[in-house]
Order: sequence, then C-alpha cells, then structure tokens
Amino acid sequence: MRISELSERSGVSVPTIKYYVREGLLHRGELTSPNQARYDESHLDRLRLIGALTEVGGLSVAATRDLLQVIDGDQRPELGDLMGLTLKRVDGGPGDGGDVSEEDLAAADALAERHGWHVHPGSALREELARVMAALEGSGFELTPEWLDGYADAAGQTARLDHDYVEGVTNLDGVLRTVVVGTVLGERLLASLRRLAQASEARRRHGG
Amino acid sequence: MRISELSERSGVSVPTIKYYVREGLLHRGELTSPNQARYDESHLDRLRLIGALTEVGGLSVAATRDLLQVIDGDQRPELGDLMGLTLKRVDGGPGDGGDVSEEDLAAADALAERHGWHVHPGSALREELARVMAALEGSGFELTPEWLDGYADAAGQTARLDHDYVEGVTNLDGVLRTVVVGTVLGERLLASLRRLAQASEARRRHGG
Repeated sequence: MRISELSERSGVSVPTIKYYVREGLLHRGELTSPNQARYDESHLDRLRLIGALTEVGGLSVAATRDLLQVIDGDQRPELGDLMGLTLKRVDGGPGDGGDVSEEDLAAADALAERHGWHVHPGSALREELARVMAALEGSGFELTPEWLDGYADAAGQTARLDHDYVEGVTNLDGVLRTVVVGTVLGERLLASLRRLAQASEARRRHGG
Repeated sequence: MRISELSERSGVSVPTIKYYVREGLLHRGELTSPNQARYDESHLDRLRLIGALTEVGGLSVAATRDLLQVIDGDQRPELGDLMGLTLKRVDGGPGDGGDVSEEDLAAADALAERHGWHVHPGSALREELARVMAALEGSGFELTPEWLDGYADAAGQTARLDHDYVEGVTNLDGVLRTVVVGTVLGERLLASLRRLAQASEARRRHGG
C-alpha cells in the first residue's frame, strides 16, 4: 500500500510516519520509484505497537526506539534480564535524581524483605520505592503495615501473573514483544483498574 | 522564619516559593515589612505536600492547585464524591480524546461486570480502561481472562485498602488530604512495587 493508505489505516499522519522512519522506529518501505515506497501489514503492525507504547504507555519517542531495538536486536537477552532491561529503558518516572535518605531506603528494604523480594542495593527501583514512600509520609499519610503490605501483595500478584503469561508464550519474538508491551502497558492497565475500582467502591460504601 | 530559611528547610528554591504564592498554591507569609514576610511550619508542611503531588505524583502545577483548592475549600464534598473529584482533577493520563470503539467499551464493561464494579456509561475511567485494553491487544498481547481477572483482583484489593484506610481517619481535613495524596501517590506506589516484584520474580524464576 502507499503511505497515504498506511496513514489512513493506522490513523498516524503521513509526516509522523516519515518522522518514525527517519528516527529508526519504523522500517523503510520498499522503493517502487525514487519518491515512492510500498508498505505492507508489517508496517501497520509496527505503527500499532509504536502507538501503544507512546500514546497509551506514555513513553517518549527515544525510549520507544530503545525498546524497539531490544525487540529487533540480534542479541537475545535472557528472559530474566529482559524485564530488567525493559524497566530500565522505560522513563524512570517522576522523581529521578532527587536524593533519598538512608532511613527511607531502609523502610523500602524492610517492606521488600517482608515480601521475600530480593532487591539490589544500587537499584533505581529501590530508590524509587523509597522516594514514593517518603513522599506519602511527608504528605501526612501514615504508612500502616496493613496498607503497605496489602499494596505489596497486590503488586506481587500482578508480577506473578506477568511471568506466568510470558512463560506460556512459545516463540522468542513473541516473548520479547510481550515483555515490553506488558511491562509498559500493564502498569497503565493496573492504574486504570484501580481508579475504576475506587470509584465503584466509593459508590458501594457511600451510595450515589 | 524568613523565605531563605523556608527555602533551605524545604529544599524548594526562593523563586519557586514565590511562584507558588503568586499562583495560589501556597498561602502568603505574614508581612513584617513591605518587602519581607515571615513563614511558619504551615508553609513548610504545604511545600512538602506540593512537592509530593508534583514531583512524585507527576501532577502539573495547575492540577495541583485544583486539588489543593478542594482540600482548602469551604465546600466539604461527601467522601463518596471526593475520590471521584480527585480522580477527575488528576491529569487523565495519556490517551485522552482518542476514540474508543463500542467493541472496546464492551470488553471493558464485561471485565468490570465480572468484578461487580458499577461503571457509569459516560465515565472517562471506563474509556481509559477500554483504551488501555485495546492498546494491549493491538500490540499483540492476548488478553486472557486469567491475566485480566488477576489484575482486576489486585486493583480491587488496593481500592478496598484505600477505603478502609480513609474510614479510619477521624478528622475531615485529614480525610481530604488523605484521599488526594493516597489517590495520586498510591498509583505511583503500586507501579513502583510492581516493578520491584517483577524484577525479583525474574531473579527467582530465572536466577541471576
């Protein structure tokens, strides 16, 4: 198909498609003349993936390109490494670079330990958890063990579901794509479900 | 204390403090001369809350001001409404305004119904869920009932924890603040815990 049809079917504008090709997110079409290229279903599929990661996943174009390079790459990381790689490429979320006190880190470690999670001392994930916990406490939110442990249980459950899911995917391309998409979009899904559940629970408890 | 001390103790720069005062996020200090004001612990406390919502919660200054107005306002919303109000003021997340098909909405409704959640037909939360589910599917992620229901169970658990927590808070100011902070930062906490749990689960299953 021509670029105009690709644009129409994908809902992505022609300039944006050209931009993705220039930036290396989308493979070139097959040249049919010096100024015209032919695109196929693989381009449509790729544009859907890019759209999911950027628009719904909230990733930057640069972070998306990095993740796509992992999917495309010759290097096939171990499944265990892949999730870590993906998490690292994902925008680290707000709060990067702020300093975290030893006390905050100890509180995060204590929570992780209660749930049997092994946490690297230099891990950015550990710092992020400590930072979020400190922000909650600094805002006058008392972090009770019941609340924290309940959240950690819920998070642990989703992590097990993700790993079960990935282990059921048989081909390697599928695994790579699943981990990247599931890691990024799974977070949005969980947030979205939590909001719906909160609103529904509010109505159940308080009417209206 | 003077503004310089407030800046030092809060870690917020003097120009930013002045900006927050101009924008109505922070109450003015008590004037001790035409060019000098005195600040107290209430300003420090407020700056911590602003920092938590903007830096860790990822809210814009405008969204933060809106939420602070709910906390400060004379109108005391019903607890049931408050969470909805908070969710509405929070940046709706990526994907706003994109269109969602009836089929995607039906898939979201089916999931909500399986979990006994009551969802308003015109709700932005319903659209967001439908959009995220469609993005996952469009990226080649097969939404199995086990995975989806497991995620919904985890989300439902956090919603119940939040409501239990709020019901244990006795004064109204505390309730307002708790709902706002818990809604915004609870989402970051859950995302952060999920990442840690994923990384830990990867190591548990695949070594390393």
